[in-house]
Amino acid sequence: MNQAIIHQVREKNPLIHHLTNEVTMNFVADGLLSFGGSPVMAKALEEVDEMTSHSNGVFINIGTPTEKDLPAMIAAGKTANKYGIPVVIDPVGIAATSYRANYIHQVLSKVKPTVIKGNAGEIAYLADTPWEVKGVDSLGDESAIDIARKVANKYETAVVVTGKTDIICTKNKVSENITGHPYLTKVTGGGCLLGSVITACLATEASIDDQLLTAVSFYGLAANYATSLQQVTGPGSFKSAFIDALSYDINKLKG
Amino acid sequence: MNQAIIHQVREKNPLIHHLTNEVTMNFVADGLLSFGGSPVMAKALEEVDEMTSHSNGVFINIGTPTEKDLPAMIAAGKTANKYGIPVVIDPVGIAATSYRANYIHQVLSKVKPTVIKGNAGEIAYLADTPWEVKGVDSLGDESAIDIARKVANKYETAVVVTGKTDIICTKNKVSENITGHPYLTKVTGGGCLLGSVITACLATEASIDDQLLTAVSFYGLAANYATSLQQVTGPGSFKSAFIDALSYDINKLKG
Amino acid sequence: MNQAIIHQVREKNPLIHHLTNEVTMNFVADGLLSFGGSPVMAKALEEVDEMTSHSNGVFINIGTPTEKDLPAMIAAGKTANKYGIPVVIDPVGIAATSYRANYIHQVLSKVKPTVIKGNAGEIAYLADTPWEVKGVDSLGDESAIDIARKVANKYETAVVVTGKTDIICTKNKVSENITGHPYLTKVTGGGCLLGSVITACLATEASIDDQLLTAVSFYGLAANYATSLQQVTGPGSFKSAFIDALSYDINKLKG
Repeated sequence: MNQAIIHQVREKNPLIHHLTNEVTMNFVADGLLSFGGSPVMAKALEEVDEMTSHSNGVFINIGTPTEKDLPAMIAAGKTANKYGIPVVIDPVGIAATSYRANYIHQVLSKVKPTVIKGNAGEIAYLADTPWEVKGVDSLGDESAIDIARKVANKYETAVVVTGKTDIICTKNKVSENITGHPYLTKVTGGGCLLGSVITACLATEASIDDQLLTAVSFYGLAANYATSLQQVTGPGSFKSAFIDALSYDINKLKG
Repeated sequence: MNQAIIHQVREKNPLIHHLTNEVTMNFVADGLLSFGGSPVMAKALEEVDEMTSHSNGVFINIGTPTEKDLPAMIAAGKTANKYGIPVVIDPVGIAATSYRANYIHQVLSKVKPTVIKGNAGEIAYLADTPWEVKGVDSLGDESAIDIARKVANKYETAVVVTGKTDIICTKNKVSENITGHPYLTKVTGGGCLLGSVITACLATEASIDDQLLTAVSFYGLAANYATSLQQVTGPGSFKSAFIDALSYDINKLKG
Repeated sequence: MNQAIIHQVREKNPLIHHLTNEVTMNFVADGLLSFGGSPVMAKALEEVDEMTSHSNGVFINIGTPTEKDLPAMIAAGKTANKYGIPVVIDPVGIAATSYRANYIHQVLSKVKPTVIKGNAGEIAYLADTPWEVKGVDSLGDESAIDIARKVANKYETAVVVTGKTDIICTKNKVSENITGHPYLTKVTGGGCLLGSVITACLATEASIDDQLLTAVSFYGLAANYATSLQQVTGPGSFKSAFIDALSYDINKLKG
């Protein structure tokens, strides 16, 4: 983990443009603000290019896909690609419906992602590998390295597979992370917010390997720290404590 | 109250498809996750049938009605009816505007609900009975049994009327519940989340009388428990503590 | 600060109709409920006139502008103007994109605001005055009185400029407020909720100078109070404690 990346985020307050799902927008914005980023969530096609051009990163999350949002997602991604702004794509629930699968394929046919982030079921689906899936919160890490590599090659992108062990796969190497806590799956948007935090870390000066490992490890450390607090007695109190923890220094989180 | 119903929810993690209002989605998803269900909230007409067919229950809440959402609500409800998946309908604010009244009538003309849930003003409106109404959070329980019976007969459905005393009316019997706390009316979505929890309980194996009474009593007990905590000093701290409490055992809630 | 205004809000529970941004709806509704108002958030053009006619105030916030919402915002504002219902307009992020600037100008060309509320960058933009802006959360108070006066004259409205020192400018006088805490900028919707609280205070019987100063001072006091609590250790715990504090008496907040 590279502490300088966290410091850079807090110095720079990168503006992260979110094309994201309706359910978790509030939590994601709160979490990113606490972490040190500056969230904006503008989905009107009429302003998406201009907003993207001001931003330091774009996060596209397909959690509540609609026909109206698709052109805006593609426009934001293309503008980001044009200006060299990092793009993170989260194919939420891709295996749940054929509409969703087709939707994300349309995005990926027009937008080059810097990172694709998903759980094992979602990444497996992109890798055309069968995987047992239930809902959008499925976890699993068996063979996750294989599917990460497949997707990294297929889309020429870095890949983050979240799970009990997170897998980070770039063209350089594969890393693993074990920080984190199951409470993150008991809070809506635990995965969405990680995507936003990853995007903020991509707006720093460091290698992508360091950026991704730092984002994922820090996020998990913050969850571990929050869970360890006496006042955390369920997913509701966890959520508040976790948002707090995202604003802390690594040393405080490590105890 | 039937403890086995709560256990079944936590064993099965029923996937509940929500066609619900924009304001409270995050809270409802967090609350259902904590309770033991698995929320999905997909409103694109293009995927609604497929998503519904995977689900164990459908919750339709008319809190922020739009023309775009109406066909999706009807499609989800019809697919659920076709596969015998329970459907809960919450006619939020039906008495507030004629648009809203017409909207819910369109849903009810195409979709057979398992349960209609609302406050006294909303249920009274469906029963064509005058009722003093203000906004969407009105409460009242006088004559609530009468209006519940009327709506149960008119729509051949079970009815839950929320209020200081909750009324549960099935074709078999009428039950009452007195757990609960006024704080639930000070948190946006206190009624919406109950609808989601009810839907999850319908995905268990038990009589509908037991399912509804258990859902409503448990929900109220969780509110009472949260309110009794020293750290709960207003609606904000109540919200966190209530979400926590939804994950607890009945025995813990009963203290 | 006029304590009677707070009491009136809690006696009357004014129904505030919000045409507001998607990201912060839940927080704004929770905060207004805690404060004593009664939130409704209905954006369908088909019901917006009827809903507005029942309301005691209209809050229009341009945080997530869409073509679909524009006519509803204008209709709500015009209906409010017709019935003498107060209208508060928040030009969120107006300087960020030309679409947003044009959007708010369309609203302002059709709707007469009672109050325009924004941060210095937003109010400066409306005053055609250059201002350094970053994202939608920019703060600044230098020369804020000048720009407030310009906008008050241009739109014949009261103006609230939020910042370290808040400026309140009516046709009668200019007031300043220094309650508040930077944590409010670390929570998504800290500005949106203030707009909602201001709208609720406009539904009381008092001078607009007293209404605005009371709303802004009370809001800041609640933030100060929440921040002073031992259990507040970051933006997440602040959010809960702040919502709690909005339900308190002024005397309790003043400690």
